[in-house]
Amino acid sequence: MSVKTVQDLFVNELRDIYHAEKQLLRALPKMAKSSTHPELKQAFESHLEETRGQVERLEQVFDQLDLSKRAKPCQAMEGLIEEAKEHMGEIEDKSVLDVGIIISAQKVEHYEIAAYGTVAAYAGILGFTDDQNTLHAILDEEKNTDRTLTDLAEKLVNKDAVRAA
Amino acid sequence: MSVKTVQDLFVNELRDIYHAEKQLLRALPKMAKSSTHPELKQAFESHLEETRGQVERLEQVFDQLDLSKRAKPCQAMEGLIEEAKEHMGEIEDKSVLDVGIIISAQKVEHYEIAAYGTVAAYAGILGFTDDQNTLHAILDEEKNTDRTLTDLAEKLVNKDAVRAA
Repeated sequence: MSVKTVQDLFVNELRDIYHAEKQLLRALPKMAKSSTHPELKQAFESHLEETRGQVERLEQVFDQLDLSKRAKPCQAMEGLIEEAKEHMGEIEDKSVLDVGIIISAQKVEHYEIAAYGTVAAYAGILGFTDDQNTLHAILDEEKNTDRTLTDLAEKLVNKDAVRAA
Repeated sequence: MSVKTVQDLFVNELRDIYHAEKQLLRALPKMAKSSTHPELKQAFESHLEETRGQVERLEQVFDQLDLSKRAKPCQAMEGLIEEAKEHMGEIEDKSVLDVGIIISAQKVEHYEIAAYGTVAAYAGILGFTDDQNTLHAILDEEKNTDRTLTDLAEKLVNKDAVRAA
C-alpha cells in the first residue's frame, strides 16, 4: 500500500503489529515448551492466551475502521523470533536456557510496547477514540508481561543460572 | 559461539548490540538527510554523534573483558532499518515522511533500550560493575533519544502531518 497520509501510516503499523502477533502465536508454545522453570513455562502459557485475545481485539479495530484484516510482514519480529529459536536450539544447560529465552521474550515485548505505543498515539491524533482505548489496554498488557519477565529473571532464573555456570 | 553459561549469553548480547549500533551508524545519516523538519534533522545528527561515542564505549567494554571486538549479525535491527528505508522510499508528503521516520526511529530506540537494559543487568549479575555503569549510561542516552522523538512527534510533526492529510 502506498503511504500518503498519517492515516495510511497508522493502518500500515496496525497491519505490522497484527502480523507480529500472529507470528508470536506460533512461537509462544515453543517458548513455553522449551522453558524449564515452572513459573516461566506458566508465564508463556498465560501470555499465549492473552495474545489470542489481543489478536481478536486487533481484528475488531480493523472491523470498526472498515479495513480488511491484512497482515504486513514484520521483518523485525521475524528477526526477534529467529533469535529466540537460536537460543532454544543452542543452549544445553537448563537454567541458562531459561535466561536466554527470557532475554529473547523481553526484546519481543519491547518491540510490541513500541508498536502499540505508536498505534495508540496515532489513533488518538486521528480521532479514533475507541480504538485508542483498545490499543492502550493491549499496551498495558504488554508492559505487564515485560514486568513479569523481569521479576522472574531477577527472583528465580538468574541466580540458578549463575550458580550453574 | 556455543552458549554454555550466563556469561556466554552476556557476550552474545554485547556482540548483538555492537552490530546493531554499527548498522545504525550507517542508517542515521540517511534518516537525517530524509527528515524535512529542521529539529528532527538536528535530532538525528546529534544522535549520530552520540552513537559514535556509544560504539567507542562498547569497544572499551570488550577490551576490559579481554574479548575480541566481534559483531554478531542482529537480524532484528536489520529488519527495523529495512522498515525505515521503506518509509523513506515510499512517502512523498514531507510532514507524513517525518512521522514515518519518527515511528521507525522509535522502534530502533526501543530495541536498544531492551538490549542495553539486558546487558547492563547481566553485567551486574556477573560482577562487572564498571561495565554495568558504562552500559547504564548508554541506556539512559537511548531513553533520552526516545523522549526527544516523542516530544518532537507530539509538539511539531504530527499536527503538520494531520493538517497535510
